[in-house]
Amino acid sequence: MYSVNVRDHFMIAHSLRGEVFGPAQRMHGATYVVDLELRRPGLDRNGIVVDIGLATRVLHTVLAELNFRNLDEDSRFAGCNTTTETLARTIFDRVAARIAAGELGQDAHGLSHLKVSLHESHIAWAAYEGSLPERGAA
Amino acid sequence: MYSVNVRDHFMIAHSLRGEVFGPAQRMHGATYVVDLELRRPGLDRNGIVVDIGLATRVLHTVLAELNFRNLDEDSRFAGCNTTTETLARTIFDRVAARIAAGELGQDAHGLSHLKVSLHESHIAWAAYEGSLPERGAA
Amino acid sequence: MYSVNVRDHFMIAHSLRGEVFGPAQRMHGATYVVDLELRRPGLDRNGIVVDIGLATRVLHTVLAELNFRNLDEDSRFAGCNTTTETLARTIFDRVAARIAAGELGQDAHGLSHLKVSLHESHIAWAAYEGSLPERGAA
Amino acid sequence: MYSVNVRDHFMIAHSLRGEVFGPAQRMHGATYVVDLELRRPGLDRNGIVVDIGLATRVLHTVLAELNFRNLDEDSRFAGCNTTTETLARTIFDRVAARIAAGELGQDAHGLSHLKVSLHESHIAWAAYEGSLPERGAA
Amino acid sequence: MYSVNVRDHFMIAHSLRGEVFGPAQRMHGATYVVDLELRRPGLDRNGIVVDIGLATRVLHTVLAELNFRNLDEDSRFAGCNTTTETLARTIFDRVAARIAAGELGQDAHGLSHLKVSLHESHIAWAAYEGSLPERGAA
Amino acid sequence: MYSVNVRDHFMIAHSLRGEVFGPAQRMHGATYVVDLELRRPGLDRNGIVVDIGLATRVLHTVLAELNFRNLDEDSRFAGCNTTTETLARTIFDRVAARIAAGELGQDAHGLSHLKVSLHESHIAWAAYEGSLPERGAA
Repeated sequence: MYSVNVRDHFMIAHSLRGEVFGPAQRMHGATYVVDLELRRPGLDRNGIVVDIGLATRVLHTVLAELNFRNLDEDSRFAGCNTTTETLARTIFDRVAARIAAGELGQDAHGLSHLKVSLHESHIAWAAYEGSLPERGAA
Repeated sequence: MYSVNVRDHFMIAHSLRGEVFGPAQRMHGATYVVDLELRRPGLDRNGIVVDIGLATRVLHTVLAELNFRNLDEDSRFAGCNTTTETLARTIFDRVAARIAAGELGQDAHGLSHLKVSLHESHIAWAAYEGSLPERGAA
Repeated sequence: MYSVNVRDHFMIAHSLRGEVFGPAQRMHGATYVVDLELRRPGLDRNGIVVDIGLATRVLHTVLAELNFRNLDEDSRFAGCNTTTETLARTIFDRVAARIAAGELGQDAHGLSHLKVSLHESHIAWAAYEGSLPERGAA
Repeated sequence: MYSVNVRDHFMIAHSLRGEVFGPAQRMHGATYVVDLELRRPGLDRNGIVVDIGLATRVLHTVLAELNFRNLDEDSRFAGCNTTTETLARTIFDRVAARIAAGELGQDAHGLSHLKVSLHESHIAWAAYEGSLPERGAA
Repeated sequence: MYSVNVRDHFMIAHSLRGEVFGPAQRMHGATYVVDLELRRPGLDRNGIVVDIGLATRVLHTVLAELNFRNLDEDSRFAGCNTTTETLARTIFDRVAARIAAGELGQDAHGLSHLKVSLHESHIAWAAYEGSLPERGAA
Repeated sequence: MYSVNVRDHFMIAHSLRGEVFGPAQRMHGATYVVDLELRRPGLDRNGIVVDIGLATRVLHTVLAELNFRNLDEDSRFAGCNTTTETLARTIFDRVAARIAAGELGQDAHGLSHLKVSLHESHIAWAAYEGSLPERGAA
């Protein structure tokens, strides 16, 4: 199995609901350093997992939708806690949708698995990973 | 699959028995920077893998039993080499026992997998990972 | 010259005023991983720069005053941009005041210099450093 | 499952063929910081995954064959792009061959899985991982 | 004294002349992860050392002149070894010239000192630092 | 001012005397990841601060005298606490003596300053730095 990882980051404000969050129930914020790992069993005709330039751009585009925002005011998260785990899943889903829409190019149909990790400090991180739906060759 | 990781460290003295260890057969020591990764297929009702405050406390408690000690004098390791691999397994078992005892809270019954990594320098680390026994909901 | 460094972090929400900040004029947030470096020309009678336990506690106390807060609502920052540089200076001043008040112990009168670095992502950080006022021995 | 990781690096020049590589089609170069992860279900009689001294030596030997070279002039890569992914696979294959030849010692027959990761910058890395062929005990 | 640091990278091929370089006399290459640190005694009217967006852009522009190239073919380095130290100095000089030309904005006249660090692996780096010429206010 | 840094590590056991050390008064140990920084105002005739191969070897030799040992049994530390600060100074002095003895080569007479940093965990490190005595050219 081959994998490629690209890194970027975003900075947001939010608050969390639930006693389990203690002081994080207050409005605060975080920098999330994000690792996007893309996996596939074999390489494409260029000898790569993915066009790393396109992968970097897709990740940056997805993070730009969140960056420099107060997530408490983002209606897409209404009624849902924007925990690190939830944000990892959100980014996974949005990247997966862009792959399905062809934004990583035709050779990206061979990608089988994604992992999105969000580092919130030097001592804590969270991730979501899963398989991509199989797709026919372009 | 979701995962969350918390980091802590401990510092011990020990010696290792066996020619394969060369100069590490002498009394020496190590700082181990420890990553505890907890995985589960779905999130709990708060949208998290685990209460990260509790996970941090459990890891700290387990490491405190080892920290600032000479492991050659710890009877629980009698007759066994305290290699990095063995220590990773020991920490895994002790954290798993505390999870089973409810120290990560009732929502932690959904945890399915742990990984314990011990970084002993900038160029070497070891880990033990495995599934947790399935448990009924609380 | 000797130096010792301890690391901790805090997570805040804020917004910045001024066109130079572009999208960071919106409410957003950051994790700041903080390095506190303490310097002195010679060691104390225990062979150390500072009691690292006390230094860790003082840094944690200072950061707890900021952690999990919306800095736009903190009256101490009224009329001032809470840039990374300004926060580094604020933490420097608060740590220096606690040193002057004896919170690092009597041996800490030998400390001559502090540096406070705030890492806001994997690609950007800021710092403030300066001399401490000379003090007579206790 | 147990794992051990050792780290080393190598520095090469090369160029890549294919429009997808953009400016990397020009002669350029890279430092690759390499992580070799070795996994096995149980420990050997010394309580370790592998003799870490031997593992370090084998990795260094394999990287020395590539280090300080222009890969465009290496006939073993003729007609093939020396992408990070391809180099990860090459190193995997060469380490696996040395394990099969006994260079990690007789206890290494228990190794079941390798992962080779190449970090090419602070924001990009690639890896190849796979199972080792089962072998009878020595 | 305040400081701000931004990080970027570039990837080059080159060879070095002189017995001291051993196998690095052969054509090879490197990834350099570059830290640009900018210092000044006081902050500008926005409460910052420098517009970090502009600083990031200037560093990227300077590195783009070197990135994905064979430095042996760059006439600006004719007759000179492109050691890590020399490259750090080259980048320092080019950034300083762009600051003098106003590319970091008018408020940047207060910058007093630059440091350029090039990380060539996880175990080696080099840097050049120095004062900037004093300039009158804009 | 130019600087070059090389990194290595060593692993020791020791205990510390004095109430200030709390549980570290017990026999325990540490991994120290060591950064040796060498500075000089101008480069030598090869365009470098120092032969990095020699610097790596000298650092390794100095650390080998400490590595895999119980420092409580090292008579050179009799009556002295082997704190991180003291160890940084010891390594500084031993490297400086080897430079004076010519082990970094004749071109090393231009070195003006050393800094030795010991990282004992992901959240704590200490350093000693100072000028080297001026020496005539060889």
